[in-house]
Amino acid sequence: MKYQIIKHKAATAEPEKTNLKLLQQDICLPAAILKQSALQHNVQWMQQFADASGVRLSPHGKTSMTPWLFQQQLAAGAWGITVATAYQAQIAANAGAQRIILANQLVGAANMAVVANLIASGVEVYLCIDHVDNAKALSAFFHTEQLLLPVLIELGVPGGRCGCRTNQQAVNLAQQIATLPGLALAGIEFYEGVISTTDSVLSVRQFAQQAAALCKALFRQELLKYHNILISGAGSVWYDIIALELTKATVPSTMQIVLRPGCYISHDQGIYCQAQQAIDQRSKLATKLGQSLRNALELAVYVQSLPEPGLAVLGFGKRDAAFDAGLPQAIAIYRDGQLISNQLQQCVTTKVMDQHAFWHYNSQIKPKIGDIVLLGTSHPCLTFDKWRSLWLVDDNYNLLQSVETFF
Amino acid sequence: MKYQIIKHKAATAEPEKTNLKLLQQDICLPAAILKQSALQHNVQWMQQFADASGVRLSPHGKTSMTPWLFQQQLAAGAWGITVATAYQAQIAANAGAQRIILANQLVGAANMAVVANLIASGVEVYLCIDHVDNAKALSAFFHTEQLLLPVLIELGVPGGRCGCRTNQQAVNLAQQIATLPGLALAGIEFYEGVISTTDSVLSVRQFAQQAAALCKALFRQELLKYHNILISGAGSVWYDIIALELTKATVPSTMQIVLRPGCYISHDQGIYCQAQQAIDQRSKLATKLGQSLRNALELAVYVQSLPEPGLAVLGFGKRDAAFDAGLPQAIAIYRDGQLISNQLQQCVTTKVMDQHAFWHYNSQIKPKIGDIVLLGTSHPCLTFDKWRSLWLVDDNYNLLQSVETFF
Repeated sequence: MKYQIIKHKAATAEPEKTNLKLLQQDICLPAAILKQSALQHNVQWMQQFADASGVRLSPHGKTSMTPWLFQQQLAAGAWGITVATAYQAQIAANAGAQRIILANQLVGAANMAVVANLIASGVEVYLCIDHVDNAKALSAFFHTEQLLLPVLIELGVPGGRCGCRTNQQAVNLAQQIATLPGLALAGIEFYEGVISTTDSVLSVRQFAQQAAALCKALFRQELLKYHNILISGAGSVWYDIIALELTKATVPSTMQIVLRPGCYISHDQGIYCQAQQAIDQRSKLATKLGQSLRNALELAVYVQSLPEPGLAVLGFGKRDAAFDAGLPQAIAIYRDGQLISNQLQQCVTTKVMDQHAFWHYNSQIKPKIGDIVLLGTSHPCLTFDKWRSLWLVDDNYNLLQSVETFF
Repeated sequence: MKYQIIKHKAATAEPEKTNLKLLQQDICLPAAILKQSALQHNVQWMQQFADASGVRLSPHGKTSMTPWLFQQQLAAGAWGITVATAYQAQIAANAGAQRIILANQLVGAANMAVVANLIASGVEVYLCIDHVDNAKALSAFFHTEQLLLPVLIELGVPGGRCGCRTNQQAVNLAQQIATLPGLALAGIEFYEGVISTTDSVLSVRQFAQQAAALCKALFRQELLKYHNILISGAGSVWYDIIALELTKATVPSTMQIVLRPGCYISHDQGIYCQAQQAIDQRSKLATKLGQSLRNALELAVYVQSLPEPGLAVLGFGKRDAAFDAGLPQAIAIYRDGQLISNQLQQCVTTKVMDQHAFWHYNSQIKPKIGDIVLLGTSHPCLTFDKWRSLWLVDDNYNLLQSVETFF
């Protein structure tokens, strides 16, 4: 048969180019697809933003966990790749990253062993620390392995997630780190995404300024012992403000400013689309760069059942897409390879179950079972992690190749 | 180094037995673990329930998508494996299932090709249909492939998911199926889990009775043409009532009653635990079988950060466990291989982010960074699908082997 019989959901394991056409039903659906043109645009756009801002880019790899995408980001000029776990650090290193920020405390012997292996093989892995107990445990482990571990102190906010709550706590921790033979303090890490106040813009600015002041204090006290020193913040929502504040603050001139947005790679049509619209409005640089980030990640699914007038059951569910920040919503509907409509604003996905979605369509749309619906999502991290591979497509939804994820 | 350096999250690809010990930090955490004794108990328990009820068991495989578990279920006497998609059918067949219920309409050429391949290789795959358009498309495809496809008409409820809304609609569809050369009607499928009324018990009973009446009507009209005929319902919440009602209804005596619970395999400590408690109260047979289903699926994670008094950040998040039906809650905490406490009812997971969880502990518990916390989850389907492999453990959390998932 001519159809692609899949090994994992929706894709082959083989990376080579294909002649398959999504809209001709050549592959099993549901499938997750990445639009090549939008991906390339996003990779270039964010790198240009970082370059023009005078900061380094270490994209958060946890969003996609797709080595092929890491390679696109590195090839475009990214300084390194950021990850959340030791496992993810291994995957990033396998993809070729020579600098990795593990934006978390590293806990547990097996996890430490993964990072020690990477450092021993020449990869620079920066870890975050917020507690002296963790500092002692790490120093003991890495000193035994005859390795020197570069660490960043995590600065947090009261009521937030991880991190020292005050600059004084951070300075105290830095003084303790200075006594530990396995560690070398390399700077400060923070994540402003946990801030939630009535004036978040102001709070984010102040938090960045606080982090910069902390760096100056550590620098003056000669507590930054590693040969590279850096300050790192910023997810995909506040990177413009973090870049502005840190460059304005003239952190010690030898210090590199490293931003860590992740979701920009695929972008979305939900919460990150909204966040980017705010950035486009407030950032002169974003405006100057022209066309903003584009949604590159879509689901391709079948109309599976038409049980009642106005209700279609679509062939996807919680197993296939993020559902924690708004449900996937339809972009276009195709039949026999032809566009029926891309004006679906009045058609709404109202509910998802594990393997089904409820789609309420308006009377202008007359879907048939077997029609292909393309949907955009909100919160790419939790869509990527549903797939072992995604299809890279051109603007006509011809399948170019499959790319593998490593969650 | 002695530690297990992982290929995928938390597990090796190798199925052979290990001497690794979870509580000695021999593996990377977070990890998902399956308790062998609880799994074996659950597999036996549900098979005994089905046998004693005089019905067949075709466990829904979408819950675990773990071939090793499918094999345990089949070896214990399961009639077949149920799945939700063509891809899942392929995985179930690869695991050795000779009978598969695909409890959905099959839509799209590539998806049909997967099922055609399975049927051509001798696997019996029963599909669900609720619309004449789908019936015609399937007949055209399978007749061209010179295959005869056994189909079940899906009976639904108004306001529900897929399925014909009335028995008359179903009879009309059966008459149309009888004219199509690629199809042979094999019975009725329904899913009572979509019913949500003020008296669900009564509604579920009535729905099962309606399905049985439909079968009798189709039988009388000689519309059931396949050589095996069956009626199939029941998820993990109402299987006792469905078994009772269908056996009481004396559906045509040549008809097999097939139940399709899935979540019982691992069970949980959330919504399915509650559902089973209701079954244990209302079902004489469940009481007679003795100890009920046990939770077999746990997360093992580290205390990752202790940023404020009473708050621990645990090293797992939405990337690692279901969060749509209650958050994972702690069962026990260990330090250096020793139990600190398994009385954690007053410690509460209040929030999960992608890779972090907020755990509020009470003053009796004094966690340290690096302590291992074991948690139970709610809704196993969405925890299984976060992992490429899970660790099978004995009652002391010694690691026996890893088992692979195929999502």
